[in-house]
Amino acid sequence: MLILDGVKVAQQWCLEQKRAGKSIGLVPTMGYLHQGHLSLVQEARQQCDVVVVSIFVNPIQFGVGEDFETYPRDLSRDQALLEEEAVDALFAPLISDMYPPGYNSFVEVGGEITAKLCGASRPGHFKGVATVVSKLFNICLPDKAFFGQKDAQQVMVIEKMVRELNFPLQIVRVPIVREEDGLAKSSRNVYLDEEQRRQALVLNQALREAEMHVQQGERNVARLKEIMRKVIASSPQAVIDYIDIYDAADLGDMEQVDRKALMALAVKFGNTRLIDNRLVEV
Amino acid sequence: MLILDGVKVAQQWCLEQKRAGKSIGLVPTMGYLHQGHLSLVQEARQQCDVVVVSIFVNPIQFGVGEDFETYPRDLSRDQALLEEEAVDALFAPLISDMYPPGYNSFVEVGGEITAKLCGASRPGHFKGVATVVSKLFNICLPDKAFFGQKDAQQVMVIEKMVRELNFPLQIVRVPIVREEDGLAKSSRNVYLDEEQRRQALVLNQALREAEMHVQQGERNVARLKEIMRKVIASSPQAVIDYIDIYDAADLGDMEQVDRKALMALAVKFGNTRLIDNRLVEV
Repeated sequence: MLILDGVKVAQQWCLEQKRAGKSIGLVPTMGYLHQGHLSLVQEARQQCDVVVVSIFVNPIQFGVGEDFETYPRDLSRDQALLEEEAVDALFAPLISDMYPPGYNSFVEVGGEITAKLCGASRPGHFKGVATVVSKLFNICLPDKAFFGQKDAQQVMVIEKMVRELNFPLQIVRVPIVREEDGLAKSSRNVYLDEEQRRQALVLNQALREAEMHVQQGERNVARLKEIMRKVIASSPQAVIDYIDIYDAADLGDMEQVDRKALMALAVKFGNTRLIDNRLVEV
Repeated sequence: MLILDGVKVAQQWCLEQKRAGKSIGLVPTMGYLHQGHLSLVQEARQQCDVVVVSIFVNPIQFGVGEDFETYPRDLSRDQALLEEEAVDALFAPLISDMYPPGYNSFVEVGGEITAKLCGASRPGHFKGVATVVSKLFNICLPDKAFFGQKDAQQVMVIEKMVRELNFPLQIVRVPIVREEDGLAKSSRNVYLDEEQRRQALVLNQALREAEMHVQQGERNVARLKEIMRKVIASSPQAVIDYIDIYDAADLGDMEQVDRKALMALAVKFGNTRLIDNRLVEV
């Protein structure tokens, strides 16, 4: 696996791949890789000639008081995992290479899609995401870029950005990968102590419970949210950030689940904020 | 000359050119072409295999009360001029194709470089420029894009954006083209009546006068601005928007012209706002 040493080297190498007629698959990550990331890599490996994985804990998508400093990092372990997946190139730039002194160019997607859910809880988060992803697209020149459905709002924002700013590439969504007991895989799960880890199962349980009620005919969004709230409340340590149900196409409000909907929640256990979601169709 | 009918067709065609190993030169314009635009086209013709010219009067870079509605347009005349320059493809998209309903993705360069000069006079202008230029880059995939030094601040903003967002292309600056009497070519010159057209010569005269004083040893920015102000004031109809001298690299403030400087001015004659500038080195 090639280590692309810096922005210029990476862009030059990717340009050469394109000139050689190869399709590029990009998997942007913040590292500390788990099976969720690896499923993105495997999908890229299947669909593209060349697979590039980026590892970059992007400071500008973290707010004040968030976990930028403590976000888990283990580059050599990540590197070994990517070697096993036959990744062609790893791009792990320095912050100073991505954001040199005086840096002041940003990409922002406005409207409901970034105002709700994590956009409401984490002001500026999606501006940081849209900016770094734009930079990664321009550096790595992917034909396809792979994102996990775990960060449902993120992939929606990126899809809208790609469509509206006309990036010449396709976004591929890859399903959530879960632990055997149902907890969605996340680099942040390592923050949880044993008791929190046990209680964190309520996220997936709440989503399953709500989905079951939809399947049994419940359409009322307020009642479905209340069902989820009760499941979460069964965990004494859980502090709800949001529990919401929105139109899965654009995060538009809905009172009845009469079209494809995104059920999404964010819950804190101590300092650890976990998210999970499920798409439901009727 | 091929007419690229819509965003998707244009992007597809440009992708094919790239796959065929051809370099693409893009000349983004708002149409109503004059010799200034054609000098960009000629430069692109010399430097690239394939030349694409875009014509798009970009609504989001015009403020309320500005001249978006009345901006001069003559597509068939433009088309004939571009045929003569052996342009390969013309891209003249509809507004609804560039900004479909619900459009909400923007690119913005912050800091001094957009806060001064036209950025101060025209709030939101450079956000509109950065956004449309990003879209044109993503659609037309240029190896080189050609911009006129006439819009000095615009080309600085775009160079910063390209550098910071890592667009895989090079910006080429092309010198100002002037009428025989010195007035900088501009599509907006057609707005001037005969008397205004005569008085508009003060822009270039003021810049020449200031440059002469620099050559003779004057370094004081305040005094140089005063020299320009006096020349402009000799025109009874001229209303000064700004007369400024900044660091040519980043629009940083300067009290002495002790490094490369941009002397720039914007002056209104009736409803017509004209800009002009000159780079001076010491």
